[in-house]
Parts: sequence; C-alpha cells; structure tokens
Amino acid sequence: MAGTTPRSPLAPDHFPELPVIGGVRFAAAEAGVKYKNRLDVMLAVLDPGSAVAGVFTTSATRSANVLDCQAKLGGDSDAGAAILVNSGNSNAFTGRAGEGSVAAICDAVAAETGLPVERVFTASTGVIGERLPHDRITAKVAELAASLSEDQAQVAAQAIMTTDTFPKGASAEVACPGGPVKIAGFAKGSGMIAPDMATMLVYIFTDAKIAQADLQAVLSTLNARTFNCITVDSDTSTSDSLMLGATGASGVTVTPETTAFVDALEAVMTDLAHQVVRDGEGATKFVTVNVTGAASDADARTHAMSIANSPLVKTAIAGEDPNWGRIVMAVGKSGAAADRDLLSIRFGDVLVAEKGWVAETYREEDGAAQMTQPEITISVDIGLGAGAATVWTCDLTHGYITINADYRS
Amino acid sequence: MAGTTPRSPLAPDHFPELPVIGGVRFAAAEAGVKYKNRLDVMLAVLDPGSAVAGVFTTSATRSANVLDCQAKLGGDSDAGAAILVNSGNSNAFTGRAGEGSVAAICDAVAAETGLPVERVFTASTGVIGERLPHDRITAKVAELAASLSEDQAQVAAQAIMTTDTFPKGASAEVACPGGPVKIAGFAKGSGMIAPDMATMLVYIFTDAKIAQADLQAVLSTLNARTFNCITVDSDTSTSDSLMLGATGASGVTVTPETTAFVDALEAVMTDLAHQVVRDGEGATKFVTVNVTGAASDADARTHAMSIANSPLVKTAIAGEDPNWGRIVMAVGKSGAAADRDLLSIRFGDVLVAEKGWVAETYREEDGAAQMTQPEITISVDIGLGAGAATVWTCDLTHGYITINADYRS
Repeated sequence: MAGTTPRSPLAPDHFPELPVIGGVRFAAAEAGVKYKNRLDVMLAVLDPGSAVAGVFTTSATRSANVLDCQAKLGGDSDAGAAILVNSGNSNAFTGRAGEGSVAAICDAVAAETGLPVERVFTASTGVIGERLPHDRITAKVAELAASLSEDQAQVAAQAIMTTDTFPKGASAEVACPGGPVKIAGFAKGSGMIAPDMATMLVYIFTDAKIAQADLQAVLSTLNARTFNCITVDSDTSTSDSLMLGATGASGVTVTPETTAFVDALEAVMTDLAHQVVRDGEGATKFVTVNVTGAASDADARTHAMSIANSPLVKTAIAGEDPNWGRIVMAVGKSGAAADRDLLSIRFGDVLVAEKGWVAETYREEDGAAQMTQPEITISVDIGLGAGAATVWTCDLTHGYITINADYRS
Repeated sequence: MAGTTPRSPLAPDHFPELPVIGGVRFAAAEAGVKYKNRLDVMLAVLDPGSAVAGVFTTSATRSANVLDCQAKLGGDSDAGAAILVNSGNSNAFTGRAGEGSVAAICDAVAAETGLPVERVFTASTGVIGERLPHDRITAKVAELAASLSEDQAQVAAQAIMTTDTFPKGASAEVACPGGPVKIAGFAKGSGMIAPDMATMLVYIFTDAKIAQADLQAVLSTLNARTFNCITVDSDTSTSDSLMLGATGASGVTVTPETTAFVDALEAVMTDLAHQVVRDGEGATKFVTVNVTGAASDADARTHAMSIANSPLVKTAIAGEDPNWGRIVMAVGKSGAAADRDLLSIRFGDVLVAEKGWVAETYREEDGAAQMTQPEITISVDIGLGAGAATVWTCDLTHGYITINADYRS
C-alpha cells in the first residue's frame, strides 16, 4: 500500500505545478476508509455550465460506481457537477450493498453542494469484494465541501493513490484561435493496469468551453491512443474511470476541430498514462514498444500488446538481457499476421534481427548496452503492410511479486 | 537451466517405470549443444508399419523443425520412422540456416538408420535465435543409432529437458476388445507454456495397431482437452510438438471408437500435461480452475484461461492469499459473458462468493486454509448456461522471476 513501497526509480522529480482551472475546486480529507492518517477521499466540484465526459472500464464485473457514472454521463450540465473519489476500497463485487453505498455518497454530496444527485459522480479504488464503509465517507462530506479551493489539485491527486508510489499530475496551457485555454489533470494507478477498457482513475479539467457531445468524442478518440495503450500486468480493473470536465471559465470555445486544444489534451493524457507505467508495481524500466509494417493498425496493436504483456519478455528486460528471441516468440503467438523472414527487430537504434535471423551487424554488447538504460525502446517491423501501433509498459520484477503476493493482508 | 534450479516441490516422487513398447527403441547422448556433461540429444526409432501422428505449435514464428515435421506428417508409414530431439538450442528464428540444420540432421539419421529422409522427424528446444551447431549433433548420430534399446525411454526423457527440474513420464496398459495394449510417453516443458498451439515437447508411443488418419484424429481431439488446457505463463513456444507413434507390435487393432484405448491415452496425456504444470518455472502450487455455467464451452475456457493467466491471481496464490476479488476481476476482463449477480466462486469446497457478493457463510480463515494446500481448486460458476471447462496452472513466484530474468546468460 501507499507508503510501504519505495518511490519508483522511474518517478518524475516532483509533482508538477498545476495551473488553476477556473470553475473547478478541490478538497481532500482523511476518512479512514481502510488506513488511518492518510488522505483517502477527494471531492472536485465544477461550476454550472461545465461539460463532463468520461470513459470507463468494459469489465463485465465493473463496480457499482462505474455503473452509476455511466448512467449519469451525458446529462444536462447547466447545474455543474461533483466528483467524489475514495481509495482503500473499490466497492466492486459488493452486490446490492455497493449500489446503496454509491447512493448514500451521492445523496450526501448533493445535499452539501446543492447539486442534483444526477450530477454527482463517484469512484472507489482499492480492494475488491469488501463492503465499503460509506458512512466514514459521508461523515466527511461537509468538511470537504467547506474546504473546496481552486489550488488543491495536488492533495486531491494524493488522496486517490493506492499502491502508487507517487502522485501523478500533468498540465498544459494552449493558445487556441479564440484565446488561451488551460488543461490540468491527475491520475492514480500502478497495478491491475491493462487496456480494453478505460484506464485507472484519471481526472482532467479544462477551462475551455465545449459542448458535452464534442467533449466526449474528443476524450474517446484520445483515450484509444493514450490510456488504452498502456499495460503493466495485462490485468483489467473493475473500477477504471477517466473523466474530463470542461468549465468554460476561459470564455474560449473549442471544438473537436480545434487542433491546438486536442493536441494539448493528448499531451496531458499521454503524460499521465506514462506516469502510470512509470509507477507500475515493481517497475525498474519504462518500455516503449513500437510496431510498424503490420497488415493493419489492429494487427500492430495485437503484436505490440503481445510483446508488452509477455512475462518472458518482461522478465528478460528486468534482467537487462537483450533476449530478442522472446520478442520473436511474442510476435509469433499473438495471432496477428507475421512472416518470420520479413520481421526486423531493434533495441533503441540497434538493429538486432532481420530476414528471419540475427542481423549480420549485431553485436551482443550493443544490445546489452541498450538494456541497461532505464528507458528502453523495442521496435518491431513486421514487413507486411502499413499498420502501426505504440504501447508502453514496464518490466516484471521481484518487486511485483512482493507487492502482489500479499497485497490484501 | 537444468540442474541449477532445485527440483520442483510439486514433482512426483520418482520417474515412473515405463513399460517397453514393442517396435520402439531409444537412445540418448551428450552432444554438447549448449552445455557439457549432460544428455542433450535423443533418438527414437519406430519399426516399419508404425503410424505417426502429431500436433504442433500454431505460432507464426515456429521453428524450422516444426515446419519440417508438419510437411512430413501423414506420409506413408511402411518404412518406419525416427525422431531426433536436441535440447539447448531451439533452432527457431535462425533463418534459412535453420532449415539447413534440420536437413543435415535428417540426412544423418536417414543414413544411419536406413530410413527415408521423409520419415525422419526432429525437434529442437532451448534458446531462440542462435544458430544450431548441428555438426555436434550429426557427429553423435552413429553412436545413437548403435545404442538404440527398447528400455531407454527414461534417458530419452532426460535428454530433452531444458529448464525442467524433473523428467516427465507416464504410461498405461489397457485391455482392448482385441487384446492388451501398452502406452508410454514422456514430455519436457516448464516455461513458455500456454496453449493455442500444441504443447511442449511430448512423445508418446503405443504398440496398438491403428491407421494414421485415425491416430491423428484421436490425438487432436485429446490434445484439445489435455495439453491445450495447461498454462504456466501465457507465453507460447515456437517449438512445441506433440508426437504419437503406434507400432502395431501388439497385433491389437484399435480405432477412435475403442473407448478403452482412447481413455487410457487421455489419462497418459493428462498425466504428462499435469507434470509440465508441476514443473512450471518457480511453481509452488498446482492449481485446477473449473468453470461451469458459462454461456458456452468456449466462454468457459475464456474465463478459465483469464483466471489461470492473471498475474494478480497467480501472485495471490503464491502468497496464500484467498483474494477472491481478483477472480472476479479476471472473469470481468475476459471478454466472455458474465453477470456479477449470478457468479459463484469456491476455493476447494468452500463457497466464497455468490449473488454478487461474499457468501454469507464464508469465513476468511476457511478460504485461507484452502490456500495453504499445495494443490488448490478454484471453481467458478457463471450462472448463465451449461458451458464448462477445466484448465491447470501454477502460481507466479519470485522463482519465476529469478529463472527468467537471466535465462540466457
């Protein structure tokens, strides 16, 4: 749990200074959901007129909170919105009681903020299958509502951490045709990280003015190439939620065609996604897997994910072993089209294998030197077509086993 | 590598005494393919009139040996057959040179045994992507051919080991309507073990008399519910081969309808498949995953494999943590149909969860007691239909990381 594991060696130096986003206020508190003496609940409140978009896990066993958020999304935003998140307990697979917990929290937030209950979103993250002690959370809602402030994003980021070893934030200030717009967000996540869903918990805010349907379209598009392109361990959470709130406080209207805004948002999302990988449980290496030349983009993604999720590839990276044979294995097993004699493989800029065999120019010490770096790029060209994909992952180490062999106790 | 890792705690007490199968002779030798002073080549020769069937990896990057075996299978069997296997080098992703190595070995075996080259099958297992020093193997073929003996199956089983910590054998003697028939086989494999292919290296022999097409049909059917139902690490080898030779020496004719024979063969295959899991790299627990009540058998298999391959489920088992929430997660992410409120989960005979939540009768100490056992059964009923599947796996431990973070060096 937070605090017991040393800070990831891949962590950034410090939490970034996030700009104030007009129209959003934050607060965090110690509710003692599972552990004492740590922030474990955060509240964010968006002013009337804000648009809210979201992407959530596709798990068939997703949490009561996720189901509630999905039902509320896209509703009328004139009233504003609130987001309450707790860590320490995921409220997933808690049956009808889980739905009762969500309702109790939403009622308490609605009562304290004056918002309609349909505009209150929640998330819970932590252990699965234990009843959420929601009374500990509702007891803190008045305190949270009273302490809301525009400059408290960092404490909010801290409050949603579980096995994370550092809080994750990113921001951008971008000149749009209509004027300057700000974007700021934070994320949590380090285990049970795999796409085919949304992602961990991620909350991003902007003062741009944008219609809700447009905001949702932009978010879904960018999610497919940011958070859905990371994997720590191939396991998919029951609680993953990505929400994006646009307050309009800048007075600057943007659309999906406002390239400057979309690019800046993608940069923030990519930054946060990378930070989740950098905090992968037990991670010592940040790995970029580039696949090109596949028969289709979908095939490229299948190959890239097969490499990124292979326990044998990930343990070789942990051991700084340039074991490119395991890359061949992962491409071969993926199920997507490949031809042994057309494949080429690079570690960084070192050509390792081509034409169905080790490259003539390859020297083992060159590959080994690449593997000693904390950031490693594996590039595979399939040689069949124009399909391409990039995914990000980390290595599989003793640290992962240590953290997960006894997480619950 | 073999010898450096302690014998698996899940290993059987001793190698079983395999019955002599009339019409098959074995030999093993030290060729020094990668390591000195260990058996690393085996030769098996089947008498004229034998039928040979096989199942091989579906990997797109499968080895030259596998491609060669697939091309030869189903051919005329009147001449007899030979199988030569080396460990220490997989001859996979070795380009055209790999095909040359296979040809050189087949030519040498054909010359020494008098068999046509079309009846010589090979397999190589070990590191991927390094040129096979096949001259070390061809130099031993005369010695192998001269020392063939009906009672040398155990040394053959030893010669094909790589990271295995024990040789794996199984046998049956079965009364068929036409008379008694014997079956004996051996296998290697402990990492890079996942289905969607054939399996590791497995060689099984019987003195039953059976047409080649019938033998292949029986083998493919049984493979789907034995070797294709095991997984150690979700990684699929480039070399996996399962071959079954029937010499007819018993004079007893069998067909796919000879239930006693098919059942006995399935028992031998299941036994060998289980031994591969018991020797899973770093394994300390043998885990049976039963899924029932799925919408289809295919859905049941998808759920079962999602559970068996989940790093978080496997590390929880390693930590003896009855963390059933991770079972829920794995069912949820699998992509097959599930409904939170219809699921039930058992550890052994302990009902853990039902109706979308922890079972009323469940006590944590009962679940914890199940997890301390070396053999654990996880049963999940999906509650939707009649689909069922069983798969076998092991836990994910520090031992797996240690073995694989520096396998090549």
